[in-house]
Amino acid sequence: MAEPRENLQMEKIVSLCKRRGFIFQSSEIYGGINGFWDYGPLGAELKRNVKELWWHAMTRQRDDVAGLEATIIMSPAIWKASGHVDTFSDPMCDCRKCKKRFRADQLCEDQGRALTKDANGKFVFPAGTKCTNCDSTDLTDPRPFNLMFKTYVGPVESEDNVAYLRPETAQAIFAQFKNVLETSRQKVPFGIGQIGKAFRNEVTPRNYTFRSREFEQMELEFFIKPDEVIEAIHGSVFRVQGSGLENAEPGTLNREPQPNWGWEAWHQYWVEERVRFYEGIGLSRDTLGFHIQTKEELAHYARACTDILFKFPFSKQDEKGNVKGDELEGIAARSDFDLSQHQRFSGKPMGVFDDELRQAWGKLPKEKQDDLWRRYYEHRKNYLTRSAKPDETAEQIQKQATEDANGLAKGQYIPHVIEPSAGVDRLILALIANAYSETTETDAKGKRETTYTMKFHPRVAPIKVGVLPLLKNKPELVKQAIAVRDLLRPWMNVYYDDGGSIGKRYARQDEAGTPFCVTIDFDTLGEKPELLDTVTLRYRDDGKQERLKISELRDWLLARVR
Amino acid sequence: MAEPRENLQMEKIVSLCKRRGFIFQSSEIYGGINGFWDYGPLGAELKRNVKELWWHAMTRQRDDVAGLEATIIMSPAIWKASGHVDTFSDPMCDCRKCKKRFRADQLCEDQGRALTKDANGKFVFPAGTKCTNCDSTDLTDPRPFNLMFKTYVGPVESEDNVAYLRPETAQAIFAQFKNVLETSRQKVPFGIGQIGKAFRNEVTPRNYTFRSREFEQMELEFFIKPDEVIEAIHGSVFRVQGSGLENAEPGTLNREPQPNWGWEAWHQYWVEERVRFYEGIGLSRDTLGFHIQTKEELAHYARACTDILFKFPFSKQDEKGNVKGDELEGIAARSDFDLSQHQRFSGKPMGVFDDELRQAWGKLPKEKQDDLWRRYYEHRKNYLTRSAKPDETAEQIQKQATEDANGLAKGQYIPHVIEPSAGVDRLILALIANAYSETTETDAKGKRETTYTMKFHPRVAPIKVGVLPLLKNKPELVKQAIAVRDLLRPWMNVYYDDGGSIGKRYARQDEAGTPFCVTIDFDTLGEKPELLDTVTLRYRDDGKQERLKISELRDWLLARVR
Repeated sequence: MAEPRENLQMEKIVSLCKRRGFIFQSSEIYGGINGFWDYGPLGAELKRNVKELWWHAMTRQRDDVAGLEATIIMSPAIWKASGHVDTFSDPMCDCRKCKKRFRADQLCEDQGRALTKDANGKFVFPAGTKCTNCDSTDLTDPRPFNLMFKTYVGPVESEDNVAYLRPETAQAIFAQFKNVLETSRQKVPFGIGQIGKAFRNEVTPRNYTFRSREFEQMELEFFIKPDEVIEAIHGSVFRVQGSGLENAEPGTLNREPQPNWGWEAWHQYWVEERVRFYEGIGLSRDTLGFHIQTKEELAHYARACTDILFKFPFSKQDEKGNVKGDELEGIAARSDFDLSQHQRFSGKPMGVFDDELRQAWGKLPKEKQDDLWRRYYEHRKNYLTRSAKPDETAEQIQKQATEDANGLAKGQYIPHVIEPSAGVDRLILALIANAYSETTETDAKGKRETTYTMKFHPRVAPIKVGVLPLLKNKPELVKQAIAVRDLLRPWMNVYYDDGGSIGKRYARQDEAGTPFCVTIDFDTLGEKPELLDTVTLRYRDDGKQERLKISELRDWLLARVR
Repeated sequence: MAEPRENLQMEKIVSLCKRRGFIFQSSEIYGGINGFWDYGPLGAELKRNVKELWWHAMTRQRDDVAGLEATIIMSPAIWKASGHVDTFSDPMCDCRKCKKRFRADQLCEDQGRALTKDANGKFVFPAGTKCTNCDSTDLTDPRPFNLMFKTYVGPVESEDNVAYLRPETAQAIFAQFKNVLETSRQKVPFGIGQIGKAFRNEVTPRNYTFRSREFEQMELEFFIKPDEVIEAIHGSVFRVQGSGLENAEPGTLNREPQPNWGWEAWHQYWVEERVRFYEGIGLSRDTLGFHIQTKEELAHYARACTDILFKFPFSKQDEKGNVKGDELEGIAARSDFDLSQHQRFSGKPMGVFDDELRQAWGKLPKEKQDDLWRRYYEHRKNYLTRSAKPDETAEQIQKQATEDANGLAKGQYIPHVIEPSAGVDRLILALIANAYSETTETDAKGKRETTYTMKFHPRVAPIKVGVLPLLKNKPELVKQAIAVRDLLRPWMNVYYDDGGSIGKRYARQDEAGTPFCVTIDFDTLGEKPELLDTVTLRYRDDGKQERLKISELRDWLLARVR
């Protein structure tokens, strides 16, 4: 059922993932189900580690982010407000000859073309677009296909009971914004983070786990003050050089957030934080790429979006032969669109009250007030106009925008948001591809043998340490090894292995990506008295060994695996 | 949208959960969605802690359990094999007068009756059953309603593309049994553990988060050798006194698993392990109850099932006025039903090869071989007969059972399974109900004030320690407090709070259930030289205070919160 893989490197990775229990095809014994993948014992640990590190870095390690865990099925009204019911679709087409179904944009792309739109906004194929399966040009017109999985809640399958599996975790954060604000003692700027499953009924899942139908997201919505509010309070807005669009490449900003930062600085900050996160789990800068969305690519409400890419084995080369990479995470500046939409659709106020703004406003000269008022009014009017329901008139919109802008003097506004949104499964695949390493050697008898090492960063490695008694049939060694296992196990994932030669056991841990192995040998028991209660510690990546005291082992490892 | 709560205690708990951000109604700004609940910042942390503790205790801390993380949407063939497509339903009825819909069994129960079946197996109401909403007896006949949420995978909504949201996580474990076995170096007896969301389209969700439509499970499938295999290898089977049915109350078994344990001992072992788990996170034995399913209650393939109950505020009293409790977890001995079903439906072998059995079998006297063969044959024949597809004949069944029993001599069998299956959300609710405590005091002016303390066990508490500078406007205190926060934060969830009087801040942490607070005061800075670099540590439950050295703080806390 899986899509054909793009190259040999991917095939090798897929094979190792199956063989070592990182990733299995879902429902494999029943022939699988296209676009769904399970994580085996090692994959489940790897994924848990990555999610735990994100949660730790993004919520627990910060004072300014709260966590949330919302349901996958929510009120369908949420997806109406977010625009997903109306516009979350991919263009789909069928080949009339061979009956194969395609995503129309991908079909074009695979032929070096681009799907275009006619004057009415309808998708049309560029002339000569063919079916890549049978070469026929007899294709149906591209038509939109909504990617949300649909179900019914309650015992009646009626339109009233339709519900959707969330296609992203973000909207729950917006819908619960006020509840979190009111219960968590946070004040803007602050964020709400969430990790959870999302579902998209992709027309053509592909590239192994990269584009699947069930996946997991790690999303932060970081709420900030509008630039007009910053300017009212601080006199001016701190901007990164030029606009956030051009300057989203990391490395230019002071790391400590400042009260006078505008949205560009916050956007830049989060791009840099997220790159640091990836570097901190083993994805070096040269394995990553960036895509700064152009004005044409951006959603109408978005001000900037920077994608962090990883150079996957299946990533395409550009004209110059460079590999740009495929998206791991997008960091979007979404203005106040999301909260505004939920305010309009739910009728519940989504704004905040900011006493600092109210006080500052009163002290501003009239011209400054007017200037800020007008800019905020224009922004709100633009939003309201673009998002207007069919029955809303221009007068209604102006009245609402006036009311919104009048709110500034009362200390009221709707927060803007910066959204770092990462895909867990893609990151797992990136970590696996990045870790994969093979060495083929020819032994004395001329036999070629390939060994595999998964060079995971110790912080994400599924198993942190292998504990191995040198010999299985020496009870003293086994007893001491079990004592070491039990010493370490409360603190990290330990794998105890006494089966086979020590070389075989090392090789098994190398394949699992275990960064360290600890061997209990006769010196541990005091054969050389000066080595009593020490163990051999072996490094995965270069096979180097050294001796460590058992009493120091836990802290030595903790300093490296956390 | 929420169901009416059963009593005042529940109302208070619901109110605190909302106010402090433990639990929110899903999609609340849109009027909610019945049977779906979100976890706010404190609830999300509580839930993460509970899941992490389960995962740790059940997989990482053991050599004999591997983890798995499978998809929510799987091949529909899995639910055909498991029986869910055909029989996973509740009896539903409508009141013809007021149009309200009920679960027929609950409607009877609420009137002190029991729903019965007629000679054809059709549900019938006992005479006089009424609508509890309008008192009418004009009810429709009870009819089965399948509880699985249905959706379609791929762009066509046809019968071929139907898929279900999993109603339990267990089946994925059975479906991936061979993949895990082959990649994890495990041998029977061993287990596979999984945590994940499951969905049931309950007719009447109720009791707050206790019975919701989207929930999370923590399930272990622990695979064991059939008793006949144990007997062949070890000469006899170690049984707990009497049968597992009567003796499932904990406390009678040696804690260390033994190779000659039969299914009763393993079942008993897991009941005891699970009770210890609950005790270890603060649910004392007197808050728990047990229900040992009777032969009538057991599924046809199950040999025993012990439910671990918690005495919720909404739990009903029995005739004698005792509260038995409602289910947190069921520990079922499911024989080899599940793997057998998947073997039959997928055509893929689900048995294992056990060289110890093969060798032992060859050494058995003929009479012993015959005896074991016949018992295993009878067991397999019974299973095959009860689970037969309509077109299977008695001869086919006998042939298959013969083949299965002949496998013993070749070291082949299908493992049996013990299944400890726990509901995360129920456990969270139990922990919250158990922790809830209020004190009303009248002050000197005669004003009554109620304070709330959530007495969570430190291991599950959302926040482990509050770090508080005595005064906000003393930079030396703030600086030192931030240093303490940053010292502890890499190791546990810390809440830094400098807002308001120290008494108010303690009260806030008491409500959040934070077991310890650390105050940085002038003595910390050396006002009393002998107290330099010490802090005041305050206990949540009794308000007792003591002084601790900052250098000892991390380890002191880690010993209590992990």
